[in-house]
Amino acid sequence: MRVGGSRAFTDPFPGGNSQVVMLDPHTGRMVLLAEGRLSSIGLRMVIAALLYIPERIVAVIDSTKEQSTTQEAIGFGGDTPIVHSLEEAMKYKPDSMLIGITPLGGMLPDSWRAIISEALNSGLHIISGLKHGLGQDKEFSALASTKGLRIHDLHHVTKSHQIRAQGSWRRRNINTILTVGTDSNTGKMTTALKVYEEMRRRDMNVAMIGTGPTGILISGRGVSIEDIPSDFLTGAMEFEIDKAANEGYEYAIVEGQGALSNCGNSPIALGLLHGAMPDAMILCHQPSRESDGYGLPLPTIEDSIALHERIIGVFKQANVTAIGLNSMDLNKEDYRLTTKKLQQQTGLLAVDAMREPATSLVDTLLEYFSKYKKVVLPHDISEIHDRI
Amino acid sequence: MRVGGSRAFTDPFPGGNSQVVMLDPHTGRMVLLAEGRLSSIGLRMVIAALLYIPERIVAVIDSTKEQSTTQEAIGFGGDTPIVHSLEEAMKYKPDSMLIGITPLGGMLPDSWRAIISEALNSGLHIISGLKHGLGQDKEFSALASTKGLRIHDLHHVTKSHQIRAQGSWRRRNINTILTVGTDSNTGKMTTALKVYEEMRRRDMNVAMIGTGPTGILISGRGVSIEDIPSDFLTGAMEFEIDKAANEGYEYAIVEGQGALSNCGNSPIALGLLHGAMPDAMILCHQPSRESDGYGLPLPTIEDSIALHERIIGVFKQANVTAIGLNSMDLNKEDYRLTTKKLQQQTGLLAVDAMREPATSLVDTLLEYFSKYKKVVLPHDISEIHDRI
Repeated sequence: MRVGGSRAFTDPFPGGNSQVVMLDPHTGRMVLLAEGRLSSIGLRMVIAALLYIPERIVAVIDSTKEQSTTQEAIGFGGDTPIVHSLEEAMKYKPDSMLIGITPLGGMLPDSWRAIISEALNSGLHIISGLKHGLGQDKEFSALASTKGLRIHDLHHVTKSHQIRAQGSWRRRNINTILTVGTDSNTGKMTTALKVYEEMRRRDMNVAMIGTGPTGILISGRGVSIEDIPSDFLTGAMEFEIDKAANEGYEYAIVEGQGALSNCGNSPIALGLLHGAMPDAMILCHQPSRESDGYGLPLPTIEDSIALHERIIGVFKQANVTAIGLNSMDLNKEDYRLTTKKLQQQTGLLAVDAMREPATSLVDTLLEYFSKYKKVVLPHDISEIHDRI
Repeated sequence: MRVGGSRAFTDPFPGGNSQVVMLDPHTGRMVLLAEGRLSSIGLRMVIAALLYIPERIVAVIDSTKEQSTTQEAIGFGGDTPIVHSLEEAMKYKPDSMLIGITPLGGMLPDSWRAIISEALNSGLHIISGLKHGLGQDKEFSALASTKGLRIHDLHHVTKSHQIRAQGSWRRRNINTILTVGTDSNTGKMTTALKVYEEMRRRDMNVAMIGTGPTGILISGRGVSIEDIPSDFLTGAMEFEIDKAANEGYEYAIVEGQGALSNCGNSPIALGLLHGAMPDAMILCHQPSRESDGYGLPLPTIEDSIALHERIIGVFKQANVTAIGLNSMDLNKEDYRLTTKKLQQQTGLLAVDAMREPATSLVDTLLEYFSKYKKVVLPHDISEIHDRI
C-alpha cells in the first residue's frame, strides 16, 4: 500500500518508485549557486546535490571556473553545465535557485545579494542552505511576495516542530531506522541516503527524514535538528516520524547527527535517538580515525554498539544491525581486511555504501525486521500526565 | 581564597559569606507579582523566591488574597506583606518587580501589561520569568530605555551562550557537581540549592549555576538551558562553568534538568552532563514514584546510577556520590525506612534536603573530593581541530 504525499515531477532516485514528498512543488529544475566555491572537497550541499540529485540541477553558477561541465571541473555531476552568470543559467529554464554554499565570514556578500534579487526578479524560487534566514530578509521577502515566489530556508524550523515529545513512538506503526555514529562526520547522511535509494529501487514504501539542510534537500522532508531549542528536540523528531507514519509509510530512515560519545553534539545524537526511538540502528564508523575533533580517543566499536543499545534499552529493544563504513582513506585491500575484521569483532555486516551497493545493508535490515517484534509496553499512552 | 564577582547588597543565604554574583545590581528589593496565583502548590518561581530569597522580596502583589502576610496565606515567607496593588507595594521601597507567574493561556493579560508599565513608570526594573521576552516588547523596551531601567528576562540567552563546545573541561580547574535525576521533577534544583546553601554556610568558595529561570534568579547566575539551540547546549554550559572557574571559584554546583531516561528531555540532561562534565553527581529520586510522565516505568536506582557513570565514563571518571530524595509524600517512619533501604541497596547516602540539613550531603562530597583525582587525558586541548 502506498498512500499520501504529493507526487514528484522528478525523481531524485530514478529506477525507484516515483513518490517523493518534495519540499516544495517548484524545485524540480534548480540552478545551483556555487560562486567561487565549486569543489570536490568536503561534503557540502553543492557536492551532495550533484551526487544525489543531479537530474534536478540544470546548471551550476561559478564564474571562476573555466570548465564547461561539473564532471570536467570536479569529477562528478555528469554533463551538468557550469555557467558564469544567472543570465546565462536562465536558458536552461530553471524554476528555482539553490544556494548551496556558505559565504566566507558568514556575512552575505553584496554580489550574492544582487544575484538573489536577480533570481527573484527572473521568477525563480529560492532554496537556501544558509543559516541566516533569507525569508526574514526584508528586501527578499518583499520581492518574493510581490512575485508570488517562495523562499525556502532549509534551516527553518516551523511552529509544528516546537512541541514537547508525547512519547508517541509507543503507538506508531512504522519500522524506523536511525543511522548513528562513533563520531561526527562518519557518513550517517550518506549511509541513510544509500539505504533509502536501495529501498526505493526495490519499490519499498519508505520515507527518509533529513535532519540537516542537505539531507532535507535531497530526501524532500525533515527538519534541521540543530536549529531546534533543546526542549523541543525529541518532540520535533516525533512529529516528523508520526507524519511519515500517518502518510502510510512502512519504513522511515532517519539521518543521524553527531554522536553519543562526542562531547560537543551528544545532546543532538540523544535527541534523535529518543525522538526517533528507532527499531534498528546502523552504526557509522571511519576505521582509520583514532581520535575525535577534541583530540579524544574514540570508543571501541564494541563499546559504541553497547552504549547505543543500552541507552535505548531503557525504553525498548533496538539493535545495531550493521556497520556503515567511511573508508575513503583505505585502499582496496585494506578495505577488504577491515570489513572482514569488523565482522569478526562484532558479528555484524560492515559495508561502505559509497564503495559498494547498499544491497547487503538492506538485506540485513529486512532479515532483522522479519524477526523483530516491537516491545509492547505495560502502560498505555493515555496515562501520559502533566509531569511531562 | 575568595576572588571575583561583584559584592551583593543582600545575601540570599544569610549566615554564609556575602559574595554573590547578582543577575543585576538592582534586584535587592523586589516586589513580586503573583496576581491571583499566590499558592503553595507546585514549585513555581513565586514559591521558590519566598522559600529561598524571602529577604529580597519586600511585598507580594495579589489582589485576590485577604490575608496580610504570605505566612498566613500559604504557610511560608514569614512576614512578607501581601498587597493589592503596585501603588500599595511602593511604600516598601522596591527597586524592581519580579514577574514570577505565567499567564493562563500564555498571552499577557491587559491588566498585567498595565501593571508592568506602571512599574516601569514608577522607576522599577523588571525581572521576568515569562517565556515571552518582555525586553523585545516595543512598548516596554521603549519605556525602560526612557527611564534608564533594565528588563531582565530570565529565559534570555546571550550571544555568549551561542557557542559550540570546545572541550574546555579538560583544562578547567574547578570541582564540578551536577544534580541528575531518575526522572523530571525529582528535586534537582532544590538539592542543588540546599547543597549550595550549606557550602556557603561553611564559607566555601562555591558558585551555583542555575539552568532554569528560577535557579538563575536564586543563585544569581546561569543560563536557561531549554532555550538554547541544541548544537550550542554543551557549549553554553561550558561557557558558564569556565566563567565560574575563571572567577576563581573552587566549586561549581550545576542545577540539573530532565533525566537521561526521560524520552522527552533526555537531550537536555545529556547536554548538561557533557557540557558540565561534572566530577561528582547527586542523583535525585522520588522513591514513591513508579512511572514517569509518559506512564513509563522508571529505571531502578542501581540502573540509573550505572547509566550516568557509564555515559560520562566515555570521557572521565565521575561518580554518583549521594542520593537526593524527594520524599514529600512519605511519613516520618517511611522516610527513615526508605533512606536506610536505599543506603543498603546502593552504598550511598540518601537524604531529602528539604527534610533535614544538607550537612551530610556536603560532608560526603568533601570526603569524595579529598580522594578524587581528575582524570588526565592523553590528548592536549591544542589538538582540537576542525572536526568539532
